[in-house]
Amino acid sequence: MQPWKTQSRKIILEQRPWLVVEHHTVELPNGRVIPEWPWIITPDYVNVVAVTEDGRFLCFRQVKYGLQGETLSIVGGFVEAGEDPSAAARRELLEETGYASDDWVSLGHFNVDPNRGIATGHLYLARAARYVQPRNADDLEEQKMIQLTRAEIESALANGEIKVLAWAASITFALRHL
Amino acid sequence: MQPWKTQSRKIILEQRPWLVVEHHTVELPNGRVIPEWPWIITPDYVNVVAVTEDGRFLCFRQVKYGLQGETLSIVGGFVEAGEDPSAAARRELLEETGYASDDWVSLGHFNVDPNRGIATGHLYLARAARYVQPRNADDLEEQKMIQLTRAEIESALANGEIKVLAWAASITFALRHL
Repeated sequence: MQPWKTQSRKIILEQRPWLVVEHHTVELPNGRVIPEWPWIITPDYVNVVAVTEDGRFLCFRQVKYGLQGETLSIVGGFVEAGEDPSAAARRELLEETGYASDDWVSLGHFNVDPNRGIATGHLYLARAARYVQPRNADDLEEQKMIQLTRAEIESALANGEIKVLAWAASITFALRHL
Repeated sequence: MQPWKTQSRKIILEQRPWLVVEHHTVELPNGRVIPEWPWIITPDYVNVVAVTEDGRFLCFRQVKYGLQGETLSIVGGFVEAGEDPSAAARRELLEETGYASDDWVSLGHFNVDPNRGIATGHLYLARAARYVQPRNADDLEEQKMIQLTRAEIESALANGEIKVLAWAASITFALRHL
């Protein structure tokens, strides 16, 4: 199968580091040309399912601007410029929870969207997480750290309390390794 | 916990039906105001994990503009204006595969992004799918329909052949119901 080709690209909206929108001129294998194909660039991100040595999942109760009501979330954040995703995962775990781990499992990296870019999400499991220092989260949202048992997080998944796709996917992928 | 409030919103880029970008003026619970918070609107979508009566998963080998190389995909598409997501799932299954099912399981609906909107994905499992008519896909991409066993789709997941988050999540969620 032949890939589609990018003939040209033009930035039409630029609000770094949060959002860039481009228009691509795209050529299909049959010669058809599509102008102004919207291409969205937002920061790549990591999510981390962190589980303590006694099997507790490190989670948060918080509000997020894009979500209705309170939500249950996991560790996550943007990959900084030039940063390796696995380093971003370790950094976010330490910042947001004060925990560290020496037992990391990659749960895969995934495109958010098959057509328009958006971002790549890098998902991790951190086993045997241990407390090393006070947490130092710089997020703007009000956030309360909690620890859940496996039964509690499976119940939260089943009840729709995990509202973001990458969070629910990370937890479900992680459960296959625990 | 108090939600953030939207004081005002303004469209700054409009390319319907594919993309609208807004700027929101957002007020935090502590009174701080953030101007020009980017808010991205793309179409809500469905994905369907379809499994035949003899346990075969209906998949596609195809190329997508946003993905490197060939990818393994599942049934999916946008929810049309005014359409119920479950109706969109039935429609996309029939259009893309020619199959139908009377045994549907909702795998949940999820926000793609906690901060900036983007879309909601509605994920489904269609069990005991049966062939009813020739497929009639209107996608622009070259696409080959294939049937995989459970072992083959689990292997594809493990090998990173399922490159889009919503597809890998749908399959993993579905495996818990099969």
